[in-house]
Amino acid sequence: MIKKVEHIGVAVADVEKSAHIFRDLLGIPMERMYESEAIKTKIAFLPLEGCTIELIQPLDPSSPAAKFIQKRGEGIHHICLGVDDIEASLREFEAKGVELLNKTARKSQDGRLIAFLNPKSTNGVLIELEQLHKE
Amino acid sequence: MIKKVEHIGVAVADVEKSAHIFRDLLGIPMERMYESEAIKTKIAFLPLEGCTIELIQPLDPSSPAAKFIQKRGEGIHHICLGVDDIEASLREFEAKGVELLNKTARKSQDGRLIAFLNPKSTNGVLIELEQLHKE
Repeated sequence: MIKKVEHIGVAVADVEKSAHIFRDLLGIPMERMYESEAIKTKIAFLPLEGCTIELIQPLDPSSPAAKFIQKRGEGIHHICLGVDDIEASLREFEAKGVELLNKTARKSQDGRLIAFLNPKSTNGVLIELEQLHKE
Repeated sequence: MIKKVEHIGVAVADVEKSAHIFRDLLGIPMERMYESEAIKTKIAFLPLEGCTIELIQPLDPSSPAAKFIQKRGEGIHHICLGVDDIEASLREFEAKGVELLNKTARKSQDGRLIAFLNPKSTNGVLIELEQLHKE
Protein backbone atom coordinates (compact mmCIF):
# COMPACT_ATOMS: atom_id res chain seq x y z
CA MET A 1 0.00 0.00 0.00
CA ILE A 2 2.89 2.36 0.77
CA LYS A 3 4.29 3.27 -2.63
CA LYS A 4 6.96 5.92 -2.13
CA VAL A 5 8.56 8.53 0.06
CA GLU A 6 6.67 11.61 -1.09
CA HIS A 7 8.59 14.22 0.90
CA ILE A 8 10.82 14.90 3.89
CA GLY A 9 9.72 17.74 6.19
CA VAL A 10 12.41 19.87 7.84
CA ALA A 11 11.46 22.29 10.63
CA VAL A 12 13.37 25.57 10.31
CA ALA A 13 13.27 28.91 12.11
CA ASP A 14 13.42 31.06 8.97
CA VAL A 15 12.48 29.56 5.64
CA GLU A 16 14.11 32.36 3.63
CA LYS A 17 17.48 31.77 5.31
CA SER A 18 17.09 28.01 4.87
CA ALA A 19 16.12 28.42 1.23
CA HIS A 20 19.46 30.20 0.82
CA ILE A 21 21.28 27.19 2.31
CA PHE A 22 19.46 24.46 0.41
CA ARG A 23 18.98 26.34 -2.88
CA ASP A 24 21.98 28.66 -3.20
CA LEU A 25 24.66 26.72 -1.32
CA LEU A 26 23.61 23.10 -1.98
CA GLY A 27 22.05 23.87 -5.37
CA ILE A 28 18.70 22.11 -4.86
CA PRO A 29 16.02 23.73 -7.06
CA MET A 30 13.19 25.51 -5.26
CA GLU A 31 9.76 25.20 -6.81
CA ARG A 32 7.45 27.33 -4.72
CA MET A 33 6.69 28.70 -1.28
CA TYR A 34 3.31 29.10 0.36
CA GLU A 35 1.74 29.96 3.70
CA SER A 36 -0.74 27.60 5.36
CA GLU A 37 -3.15 29.39 7.66
CA ALA A 38 -4.51 26.06 8.94
CA ILE A 39 -1.22 24.93 10.49
CA LYS A 40 0.31 28.41 10.77
CA THR A 41 3.40 27.64 8.73
CA LYS A 42 5.32 28.89 5.73
CA ILE A 43 6.52 26.05 3.49
CA ALA A 44 9.12 25.95 0.72
CA PHE A 45 9.19 22.99 -1.70
CA LEU A 46 12.49 21.74 -3.08
CA PRO A 47 11.77 18.83 -5.44
CA LEU A 48 14.42 16.20 -6.04
CA GLU A 49 14.15 13.01 -8.10
CA GLY A 50 11.50 10.84 -6.47
CA CYS A 51 11.19 12.88 -3.28
CA THR A 52 10.74 16.53 -2.28
CA ILE A 53 12.35 18.37 0.63
CA GLU A 54 9.91 20.65 2.44
CA LEU A 55 11.23 23.46 4.62
CA ILE A 56 8.63 24.30 7.27
CA GLN A 57 8.74 27.54 9.23
CA PRO A 58 6.27 28.02 12.09
CA LEU A 59 4.46 31.36 11.94
CA ASP A 60 2.98 30.99 15.43
CA PRO A 61 4.23 29.43 18.70
CA SER A 62 1.19 27.09 18.67
CA SER A 63 2.30 25.48 15.40
CA PRO A 64 3.54 21.85 15.73
CA ALA A 65 6.76 22.90 13.99
CA ALA A 66 7.32 25.61 16.64
CA LYS A 67 6.99 23.07 19.44
CA PHE A 68 9.39 20.72 17.65
CA ILE A 69 12.02 23.46 17.31
CA GLN A 70 11.57 24.55 20.94
CA LYS A 71 12.15 20.99 22.10
CA ARG A 72 14.81 19.66 19.71
CA GLY A 73 16.06 22.54 17.60
CA GLU A 74 15.81 22.77 13.83
CA GLY A 75 16.01 19.48 11.93
CA ILE A 76 14.16 16.70 10.16
CA HIS A 77 10.58 16.77 11.41
CA HIS A 78 8.73 14.04 9.50
CA ILE A 79 8.62 11.85 6.42
CA CYS A 80 5.57 11.62 4.18
CA LEU A 81 4.75 8.26 2.58
CA GLY A 82 2.51 8.09 -0.46
CA VAL A 83 -0.33 5.53 -0.48
CA ASP A 84 -2.98 4.57 -3.04
CA ASP A 85 -5.99 4.72 -0.71
CA ILE A 86 -5.41 6.60 2.54
CA GLU A 87 -8.61 5.48 4.32
CA ALA A 88 -7.87 1.83 3.52
CA SER A 89 -4.31 2.27 4.84
CA LEU A 90 -5.51 3.93 8.05
CA ARG A 91 -7.99 1.12 8.71
CA GLU A 92 -5.36 -1.54 7.96
CA PHE A 93 -2.72 0.03 10.20
CA GLU A 94 -5.23 0.61 13.00
CA ALA A 95 -6.30 -3.04 12.83
CA LYS A 96 -2.65 -4.06 13.20
CA GLY A 97 -2.28 -1.92 16.34
CA VAL A 98 -0.47 1.12 14.89
CA GLU A 99 -1.59 4.24 16.79
CA LEU A 100 -2.97 7.05 14.62
CA LEU A 101 -2.76 10.76 15.35
CA ASN A 102 -5.60 11.29 12.84
CA LYS A 103 -8.31 8.63 12.80
CA THR A 104 -9.43 9.76 9.36
CA ALA A 105 -7.75 11.70 6.57
CA ARG A 106 -8.09 15.47 6.31
CA LYS A 107 -7.54 17.80 3.39
CA SER A 108 -4.48 20.03 3.51
CA GLN A 109 -4.79 23.63 2.38
CA ASP A 110 -3.27 22.71 -0.99
CA GLY A 111 -5.77 19.88 -1.49
CA ARG A 112 -3.81 16.79 -0.47
CA LEU A 113 -5.52 14.04 1.57
CA ILE A 114 -3.26 13.45 4.58
CA ALA A 115 -3.09 11.83 8.04
CA PHE A 116 -0.35 11.33 10.63
CA LEU A 117 0.62 8.16 12.50
CA ASN A 118 1.69 8.34 16.14
CA PRO A 119 5.52 8.28 16.26
CA LYS A 120 5.29 6.18 19.44
CA SER A 121 4.25 3.31 17.16
CA THR A 122 7.02 3.87 14.60
CA ASN A 123 10.33 4.21 16.47
CA GLY A 124 10.04 7.95 17.01
CA VAL A 125 9.55 8.61 13.28
CA LEU A 126 6.66 10.99 12.62
CA ILE A 127 5.03 9.53 9.49
CA GLU A 128 2.55 11.47 7.37
CA LEU A 129 0.46 9.48 4.89
CA GLU A 130 -0.63 11.15 1.69
CA GLN A 131 -3.01 9.78 -0.92
CA LEU A 132 -1.11 9.85 -4.20
CA HIS A 133 -4.11 10.05 -6.49
CA LYS A 134 -6.54 12.81 -5.67
CA GLU A 135 -10.23 11.97 -5.51
CA MET B 1 24.97 18.42 -8.61
CA ILE B 2 22.53 16.97 -6.04
CA LYS B 3 20.35 14.59 -8.03
CA LYS B 4 18.11 12.74 -5.60
CA VAL B 5 17.33 11.68 -2.06
CA GLU B 6 19.08 8.30 -1.96
CA HIS B 7 17.93 7.18 1.48
CA ILE B 8 16.62 8.25 4.88
CA GLY B 9 18.48 6.86 7.90
CA VAL B 10 16.48 6.04 11.03
CA ALA B 11 18.31 5.26 14.29
CA VAL B 12 16.62 2.40 16.17
CA ALA B 13 17.42 0.40 19.28
CA ASP B 14 16.61 -3.02 17.79
CA VAL B 15 16.53 -3.44 14.03
CA GLU B 16 14.63 -6.75 14.21
CA LYS B 17 11.79 -5.16 16.19
CA SER B 18 11.77 -2.15 13.85
CA ALA B 19 11.79 -4.39 10.78
CA HIS B 20 8.60 -5.89 12.20
CA ILE B 21 7.02 -2.41 12.42
CA PHE B 22 8.08 -1.13 9.01
CA ARG B 23 7.80 -4.42 7.10
CA ASP B 24 5.00 -6.38 8.79
CA LEU B 25 2.78 -3.55 10.08
CA LEU B 26 3.37 -0.84 7.46
CA GLY B 27 4.04 -3.31 4.64
CA ILE B 28 7.27 -1.77 3.29
CA PRO B 29 9.38 -4.46 1.58
CA MET B 30 12.70 -5.29 3.20
CA GLU B 31 15.57 -6.04 0.87
CA ARG B 32 18.50 -7.02 3.04
CA MET B 33 20.23 -6.54 6.38
CA TYR B 34 23.94 -6.31 7.05
CA GLU B 35 26.39 -5.50 9.82
CA SER B 36 29.03 -2.82 9.37
CA GLU B 37 32.10 -3.39 11.53
CA ALA B 38 33.49 0.03 10.56
CA ILE B 39 30.67 2.01 12.13
CA LYS B 40 29.50 -0.74 14.51
CA THR B 41 25.94 -0.90 13.27
CA LYS B 42 23.40 -3.32 11.91
CA ILE B 43 21.45 -1.89 8.96
CA ALA B 44 18.21 -3.00 7.30
CA PHE B 45 17.31 -1.64 3.84
CA LEU B 46 13.66 -1.02 2.95
CA PRO B 47 13.55 0.27 -0.63
CA LEU B 48 10.64 2.44 -1.76
CA GLU B 49 10.14 4.15 -5.11
CA GLY B 50 12.95 6.67 -5.53
CA CYS B 51 14.23 6.46 -1.97
CA THR B 52 15.20 3.76 0.56
CA ILE B 53 14.54 3.74 4.30
CA GLU B 54 17.53 2.50 6.29
CA LEU B 55 17.03 1.25 9.84
CA ILE B 56 20.29 1.66 11.76
CA GLN B 57 20.91 -0.17 15.03
CA PRO B 58 24.09 0.66 16.98
CA LEU B 59 26.03 -2.43 18.05
CA ASP B 60 28.34 -0.49 20.36
CA PRO B 61 27.90 2.59 22.61
CA SER B 62 30.63 4.39 20.63
CA SER B 63 28.59 4.22 17.41
CA PRO B 64 27.23 7.61 16.19
CA ALA B 65 23.74 6.07 16.14
CA ALA B 66 24.10 5.08 19.82
CA LYS B 67 24.98 8.66 20.78
CA PHE B 68 22.03 9.95 18.77
CA ILE B 69 19.60 7.60 20.55
CA GLN B 70 21.06 8.44 23.97
CA LYS B 71 20.56 12.13 23.32
CA ARG B 72 17.27 12.27 21.37
CA GLY B 73 15.73 8.81 21.39
CA GLU B 74 14.98 6.74 18.31
CA GLY B 75 14.06 8.66 15.16
CA ILE B 76 15.18 10.04 11.82
CA HIS B 77 18.96 10.36 11.96
CA HIS B 78 20.05 11.63 8.53
CA ILE B 79 19.19 11.98 4.86
CA CYS B 80 21.50 10.85 2.09
CA LEU B 81 21.63 12.90 -1.11
CA GLY B 82 23.00 11.38 -4.30
CA VAL B 83 25.55 13.37 -6.34
CA ASP B 84 27.36 12.74 -9.61
CA ASP B 85 30.87 13.55 -8.40
CA ILE B 86 31.29 13.58 -4.63
CA GLU B 87 34.76 15.22 -4.53
CA ALA B 88 33.58 18.02 -6.82
CA SER B 89 30.52 18.54 -4.59
CA LEU B 90 32.64 18.62 -1.42
CA ARG B 91 35.01 21.21 -2.93
CA GLU B 92 32.09 23.30 -4.20
CA PHE B 93 30.23 23.26 -0.87
CA GLU B 94 33.43 23.97 1.07
CA ALA B 95 34.17 26.98 -1.15
CA LYS B 96 30.67 28.29 -0.40
CA GLY B 97 31.28 28.04 3.35
CA VAL B 98 29.39 24.82 4.13
CA GLU B 99 31.18 22.99 6.97
CA LEU B 100 32.15 19.40 6.22
CA LEU B 101 32.41 16.55 8.74
CA ASN B 102 34.51 14.64 6.16
CA LYS B 103 36.92 16.72 4.10
CA THR B 104 37.16 13.97 1.54
CA ALA B 105 34.96 11.00 0.63
CA ARG B 106 35.48 7.60 2.20
CA LYS B 107 34.36 4.18 1.09
CA SER B 108 31.60 2.51 3.10
CA GLN B 109 31.86 -1.20 3.85
CA ASP B 110 29.47 -1.94 1.01
CA GLY B 111 31.54 0.08 -1.47
CA ARG B 112 29.68 3.40 -1.63
CA LEU B 113 31.67 6.67 -1.77
CA ILE B 114 30.23 8.83 1.03
CA ALA B 115 30.87 11.96 3.13
CA PHE B 116 28.87 13.88 5.74
CA LEU B 117 28.21 17.61 5.96
CA ASN B 118 28.14 19.37 9.34
CA PRO B 119 24.48 19.75 10.42
CA LYS B 120 25.41 23.13 11.93
CA SER B 121 25.59 24.40 8.34
CA THR B 122 22.30 22.84 7.25
CA ASN B 123 19.63 23.71 9.82
CA GLY B 124 20.31 20.72 12.06
CA VAL B 125 19.85 18.26 9.17
CA LEU B 126 22.63 15.66 9.05
CA ILE B 127 23.28 15.25 5.30
CA GLU B 128 25.25 12.36 3.86
CA LEU B 129 26.45 12.69 0.28
CA GLU B 130 26.80 9.57 -1.83
CA GLN B 131 28.29 9.28 -5.28
CA LEU B 132 25.61 7.72 -7.48
CA HIS B 133 27.94 6.21 -10.06
CA LYS B 134 30.67 4.05 -8.64
CA GLU B 135 34.20 4.61 -9.90
